Amino acid sequence: MKQSHLFTKTRREAPKDEVAKNAQLLIRAGFINKEMAGVYSYLPLGLRVLNKIVNIIREEMNAIGGQEVHLTALQDKKNWEATNRWDDKVVDNWFKTELKNGTELGLGFTHEEPLTALMKDHVRSFRDLPTSVYQFQTKFRNEARAKSGIMRGREFLMKDLYSFNRDEKAHADFYEKAKQAYLKIFDRVGLGAETFVTFASGGSFSKYSHEFQTLTEAGEDTIFVDEKKKIAINKEVLNDEVLKDLGVNKADLIEKKAVEVGNIFSLGTRFSEPLNLVYSNEEGKSVPVVMGSYGIGPGRVMGTIVEVHADDKGLVWPEAVAPFGVHLIAIFDKVGKVQVEADNLYKKLSDKGIEVLYDDRDTTAGEKFGDSDLIGIPTRYVISEKTLANNSIEIKDRLTGKVEMVKIDTL
Amino acid sequence: MKQSHLFTKTRREAPKDEVAKNAQLLIRAGFINKEMAGVYSYLPLGLRVLNKIVNIIREEMNAIGGQEVHLTALQDKKNWEATNRWDDKVVDNWFKTELKNGTELGLGFTHEEPLTALMKDHVRSFRDLPTSVYQFQTKFRNEARAKSGIMRGREFLMKDLYSFNRDEKAHADFYEKAKQAYLKIFDRVGLGAETFVTFASGGSFSKYSHEFQTLTEAGEDTIFVDEKKKIAINKEVLNDEVLKDLGVNKADLIEKKAVEVGNIFSLGTRFSEPLNLVYSNEEGKSVPVVMGSYGIGPGRVMGTIVEVHADDKGLVWPEAVAPFGVHLIAIFDKVGKVQVEADNLYKKLSDKGIEVLYDDRDTTAGEKFGDSDLIGIPTRYVISEKTLANNSIEIKDRLTGKVEMVKIDTL
Repeated sequence: MKQSHLFTKTRREAPKDEVAKNAQLLIRAGFINKEMAGVYSYLPLGLRVLNKIVNIIREEMNAIGGQEVHLTALQDKKNWEATNRWDDKVVDNWFKTELKNGTELGLGFTHEEPLTALMKDHVRSFRDLPTSVYQFQTKFRNEARAKSGIMRGREFLMKDLYSFNRDEKAHADFYEKAKQAYLKIFDRVGLGAETFVTFASGGSFSKYSHEFQTLTEAGEDTIFVDEKKKIAINKEVLNDEVLKDLGVNKADLIEKKAVEVGNIFSLGTRFSEPLNLVYSNEEGKSVPVVMGSYGIGPGRVMGTIVEVHADDKGLVWPEAVAPFGVHLIAIFDKVGKVQVEADNLYKKLSDKGIEVLYDDRDTTAGEKFGDSDLIGIPTRYVISEKTLANNSIEIKDRLTGKVEMVKIDTL
Repeated sequence: MKQSHLFTKTRREAPKDEVAKNAQLLIRAGFINKEMAGVYSYLPLGLRVLNKIVNIIREEMNAIGGQEVHLTALQDKKNWEATNRWDDKVVDNWFKTELKNGTELGLGFTHEEPLTALMKDHVRSFRDLPTSVYQFQTKFRNEARAKSGIMRGREFLMKDLYSFNRDEKAHADFYEKAKQAYLKIFDRVGLGAETFVTFASGGSFSKYSHEFQTLTEAGEDTIFVDEKKKIAINKEVLNDEVLKDLGVNKADLIEKKAVEVGNIFSLGTRFSEPLNLVYSNEEGKSVPVVMGSYGIGPGRVMGTIVEVHADDKGLVWPEAVAPFGVHLIAIFDKVGKVQVEADNLYKKLSDKGIEVLYDDRDTTAGEKFGDSDLIGIPTRYVISEKTLANNSIEIKDRLTGKVEMVKIDTL
């Protein structure tokens, strides 16, 4: 894409009311726009990053057999009353609205209820299980405070997968597969080194749930990390029993701030029983389905990548989620030779399927370099009168700052 | 995809309260689920169709230079008060909700206001224009009645593009390009023959807007069609002046029911003036930006395709938007030979990049054929003991019903 065509501009200052580093940088670089606290629009560069994260998650969900659907935001209270999650005293972050005739509706903050109800049309016998269903869908949560940028929004995209199994054993097998898929996802998006499987409270149907916590000072959670064993324990559940369960020594634990980038949860029959999602087992007996839920917020992942990798010059994107692979910067000369060569190189790279942002703007080298650092594309190609004198371009790595000159015809 | 893996089931009856043919068939075939009137979830087969429509629209929007973004559903009333569209007496289909602190919010039914406000950070001089921005985003409209299935929802996906130009002339050029792109889209999704550019009321900034109306008895609009000239006039604006403007003879017009599958609209400075989206022109003078808006609802398009093409056996998908290209149906024998051949063929077709739904279920031939007719994949391959006796498969066209036997090794 030619940068002269991109409608967004970078800016020096983030809005004064924006306190989160991730949102400050993403707004300054033109990736997102703040509509209000906790509510952000995605602009072309930001949407490209978000979609890359979404596609990685989708591939891994498909790999474990997940089937993609898209449920609705508007929620009928019927299903939520059945599970006792409609009342604002029980769930304190509902957004509610109403139809013209006064019927109260909710805006989904999660989707166990509608999906469980829907599955009743499709699950009858043991032969219909196991199955798992996921979506990328906008959630609404009426957070009292929203100060973490795109890491905690009032409106945000969520990947939520739900699993349906015959019994606890089959569920446990799928749960483990999902856990491994999650680790792969965080690895692929560039958060592998900083992300720990973290034991957290489980609820009525299992002793623990598992969070995926990424170490960052911007995190809202406190966890205790055993770096050697590559596991962690959420502060909320840390006690002697847990240490014993996990075979962890208190002395090996380091306290860290972290953000929960994913969560997997055994639901047992918490939803299938009240909503009557049952199947007929091999003896013909009617049995409630055993469920699990598995969430990742792609926007939260994006914000976390910013918090973990950005430096004082701006954003730094891991290859797999970068809006473009190459930032081609042309420092134009007066005779137009640089432009010819740069246009040519842009075309060649694009033809090879390399995603290039081509800074063809009529502006200063200083502004181009500053914007490039802020936008954070992994590899920068600079082409100028000087580099062309050696039939070369300069290649700079955004992360390491390493620079090398490369002959154009060896590219 | 193996049909034994697909979690959805077909069913004989649609819900009793469902009156629209499109929703009845789509629910029966397992493409969508009705959450409440005008609110539908998309299941795997339905989401595949929707995504194909979305991708066709995206390609055509990119081809005219549109840049993709994703704005939010939650709306700050500030921008809407500036354009006098916040008040429920002015706009009667808002869904509204509120923050914990009582701040009233809206759920976007369209996005002129937030996008115009956002563009103020990015448009400064005449050099920043023209530009155009689009999104696929969920709209919420509090319709008093919602009886047209996915053709008119209370919550639905919308592609909305907005154009920003220096003046009326530049706007008119883009508007014409967008009109041509729209015609291409309706052609590509299989509605070309039935869709007419239709003159409708324009508003303060232009005499007419253009609707794209597809002929179907299920439509809520009445239009007058000149089939030779391939244009139409919405009943709402039909008068002698319009006939004269368009050079149309009243005697050549036929009254038809139709559904509005798209709409393009010249906005002039209706939004840029109150929201102060101005640019500095070549003389350094501050001038309001001239805007246009261009909408297509992919779900409505999908519902319209059903209304236009379905027959009494079920859905009939045009190739370009079909959930799969081929429905491979295996009628298993007792010795397992059919299964080996069918598995083999499934693998070969998939390896070639052909999207195949493979009915490998352990059920009757009658059920497989019935489901296949209902689901409506364009081409059906049947493999059975009988066809294998001739080293053949039977190929049936869903639309025409034409059947031929083809040798497996010539496929």
